[in-house]
Amino acid sequence: MNKKEAIDYCINLAKSANENEIRPNPFVGAVLLDEANQIIGEGFHQKLGGPHAEVFAIEQALQKTTDLSQATIYISLEPCSHFGKTPPCCDLIIKHGIKKVIIASLDPNPKVESVEKLRLAGIEVEIINDPSAITLNKRFFTQHIKLRPYFLLKTASTIDGKIADRNNHSKWISNEDSRQFVHAQLRSNTDAILTSYKTILQDDASFTIRIEGEPIKETNLIIIDKELTFLNTEYNKLPIFYNRTNTKIYFITDKKNTPVNASSIELIEGDFNNEGLIFSSITAQLMEKGFYSILAEGGQKLNASLIDQNMADELYWFIAPKLLNDQQAIPMLGIDKANHLDNAYRLELVDMKRFQEDILLHYFIKQPLD
Amino acid sequence: MNKKEAIDYCINLAKSANENEIRPNPFVGAVLLDEANQIIGEGFHQKLGGPHAEVFAIEQALQKTTDLSQATIYISLEPCSHFGKTPPCCDLIIKHGIKKVIIASLDPNPKVESVEKLRLAGIEVEIINDPSAITLNKRFFTQHIKLRPYFLLKTASTIDGKIADRNNHSKWISNEDSRQFVHAQLRSNTDAILTSYKTILQDDASFTIRIEGEPIKETNLIIIDKELTFLNTEYNKLPIFYNRTNTKIYFITDKKNTPVNASSIELIEGDFNNEGLIFSSITAQLMEKGFYSILAEGGQKLNASLIDQNMADELYWFIAPKLLNDQQAIPMLGIDKANHLDNAYRLELVDMKRFQEDILLHYFIKQPLD
Repeated sequence: MNKKEAIDYCINLAKSANENEIRPNPFVGAVLLDEANQIIGEGFHQKLGGPHAEVFAIEQALQKTTDLSQATIYISLEPCSHFGKTPPCCDLIIKHGIKKVIIASLDPNPKVESVEKLRLAGIEVEIINDPSAITLNKRFFTQHIKLRPYFLLKTASTIDGKIADRNNHSKWISNEDSRQFVHAQLRSNTDAILTSYKTILQDDASFTIRIEGEPIKETNLIIIDKELTFLNTEYNKLPIFYNRTNTKIYFITDKKNTPVNASSIELIEGDFNNEGLIFSSITAQLMEKGFYSILAEGGQKLNASLIDQNMADELYWFIAPKLLNDQQAIPMLGIDKANHLDNAYRLELVDMKRFQEDILLHYFIKQPLD
Repeated sequence: MNKKEAIDYCINLAKSANENEIRPNPFVGAVLLDEANQIIGEGFHQKLGGPHAEVFAIEQALQKTTDLSQATIYISLEPCSHFGKTPPCCDLIIKHGIKKVIIASLDPNPKVESVEKLRLAGIEVEIINDPSAITLNKRFFTQHIKLRPYFLLKTASTIDGKIADRNNHSKWISNEDSRQFVHAQLRSNTDAILTSYKTILQDDASFTIRIEGEPIKETNLIIIDKELTFLNTEYNKLPIFYNRTNTKIYFITDKKNTPVNASSIELIEGDFNNEGLIFSSITAQLMEKGFYSILAEGGQKLNASLIDQNMADELYWFIAPKLLNDQQAIPMLGIDKANHLDNAYRLELVDMKRFQEDILLHYFIKQPLD
C-alpha cells in the first residue's frame, strides 16, 4: 500500500462512521503500516465521547507486535493533543514510539498542536493537505475556521424553480420518497432547522422527523420573527407547538430582554437591517447552544439571504417533474440585487439522486474565500 | 421467446437506426418467429427511402425456409399498405402467407389500412398498444395525429433558473461539453431551429452545427419577427447571414405579401395576438416545408409560449453549477398567467446526464390530452 492508497484508505475508514453518532466531532480514520507497508492496525472514530481512530488502530497493532518503532501511522486528520473527552492521541503515538505520522489534514482547532509536540518527541511528521480529507470534514472545518454553524439549504421546486404557485399553494411539490430523504438524511443529521414564520404559516408544518416505521422525533426549530408578532399571535395554535421533551423553539428577534414563560421557547437576540436578519449577529449564540449544523428549510428570502451573506454551505435541491410557467409564482431564491454572470456564485456538484421522477441535486456552495 | 420478449426485441431493433438517417420516417423493427418461437428473421428500418423492417426480416427468413405459413411476424409499428418510396409491406406479408401478424402500435397515417387488408387475406392480426412502441415514435405520432411539427425545447440555466443576468449577459451558462451535445445530438437530429430575434442579437449566434473534427454544417433557421424590423435592420450584419447552400432563414411575420430578394430568405405569414405568435397559424406551413421536428432555442418568452400553447413536446434542460441570486435576472421561461399548483404541467423524466458539473435533464412534456 503506497502513501496515496493509505490516505484514501483512512478517508474511507473515516466515512464508515454514522454522522449522527459523532456530531459535532469530525470524521477520522487511521491506519498503521509496518516496514513492509502492510496494514497492522486500523480504526475510525465511531461515537461522540468514544475512542478516536488512532486508539483503535494502535490497539489492533499491539495485538500483533509490541514494537511499533518501524511503523507509520496515517491519519485523515491531525491527532488531538489536548485532554477532551479522551486523553490526547498525540501522547499515545509518542508513548508507543511510532516512527512516522502522516496527516491528511490539519486540525483547525487552535488547542490542537500535535505536529509540534510529535516533532519535539523525535517523530517524523508529514502533512498532506488532501482535498478529500478536507471535504470529508467540511462541516467541522467551517465551524472551527469560520466560527459559525454550517448551513445546509434544502429546497424543492418545479422545473421553473418555483416553490409555490402565485397564491402560495406549495403542497406538494416533491414526492413522498424525496420527503422521506429529507427526514431520514437531512433533518436527522443536523442540530436544528432554521425557517421563517411565513413558511410555517403557509405549510402548516410541524418540522418533526418522521421516518416510516420509527417513532416521530423532535427537532430544534429556529424561527426568524423580528417583532415576535408570530410568537405572540400564533403561540400554541400551530403544529410546531407540540409538547417538547428534549428540544426547543428559538425565536430570533430584535426585541431585547423580552420575558418568555414557556419552557420550550427561547429567544435569540439578533441584529436586523432593511434586508432582514444579519446572520453574523446570531452565529456565536447558535454555536453556544450546540447548533453546529443547521438545515435551512425556508422560502425565497431565507435562502437568498443565507447565500447573499455567504453563510450557505450546501444545497439540497429537489426538482419535481412539473412546470408552472407563471412568472408570478414564488421562486426558490432571489433578492433584488444586480449580479453579473461573471460573478455568479459557483457550486460544486457533489451528487445526483433520483427519487422516482424527482431529481435531487446536491451541491457545495463555494464561498468567496474557498 | 414469448410475446413480450418478441415485442421488446422489435423495439430494440428499431432503436438501432440513426434518427438522422430515417427522419421523418418512424423507427421500426420486425422479427419473424417460427412455430417453436425461434427467430428466423429480423430487421429494422435503416434509411429514408430504403427497405422497411419487414423486408429485411422476411428476406432473412427466406434464406432458411421457403415456407412461412407457420411463422408469426412481430412489428413495432403497423406495416404500410400503400405505395410510398417502397412497395407495401402488407402485400409482402400476404404474398408469403405468414400465419400471424402482431403489431405493437398502429400507424396513425390514414393511408395505412393494413390491419383490414391482412384480415381480409385470412391472416390473424393482433394489435398491442405497447407504451414503449408508442414512445419510441413520439415525434412521428405527433406529426401524424396532431398534424404539426414536434417541438423540442432546449435551455441552459443557472440553478436559480436564469438564462442571463439582468443585463442580458448569457455567455456562457453551460460548459463546452454541454454545448457539444446540443450540436451533435439536438441540432443534428432536427429539421430546423426556431428562435427569436432577441436571442440572436443577445447571443450573436450563428446557429450552425459545429462538431469537433467535422466540417461546420448549416441549419434551417426560423425567426419570429412580426414587423420584419429585425430583417430590415440587421440583414447581412450578423453571423446567421452566412453564405447558405442548402438551408434558408424563415422569418415569421404578419406583414402579408412582402417581397424578398435574397434566395436564402423566405417569409412565413403567421397570426399574432397581444401575447405574440399563435403557433397553430404556422404549423401546417412548417410541415409543408419539411420541418417535422423543430428545436426551439429561444428565451423566456419563446419557451413559455410554446408551453402555454401546448406545442412543447420535450425539454432538454442543462443546469450549470452557478447561482445568480438576483430576482431580476432573466428566467428560462414564464408568462404572466396564474396557474394553480394542482394544474401544473406534468413532465416525464426520460433521462439524466452529467457533462462534468453540468446536469442535463431530459423530459417529455405531457400535453393535456396525453
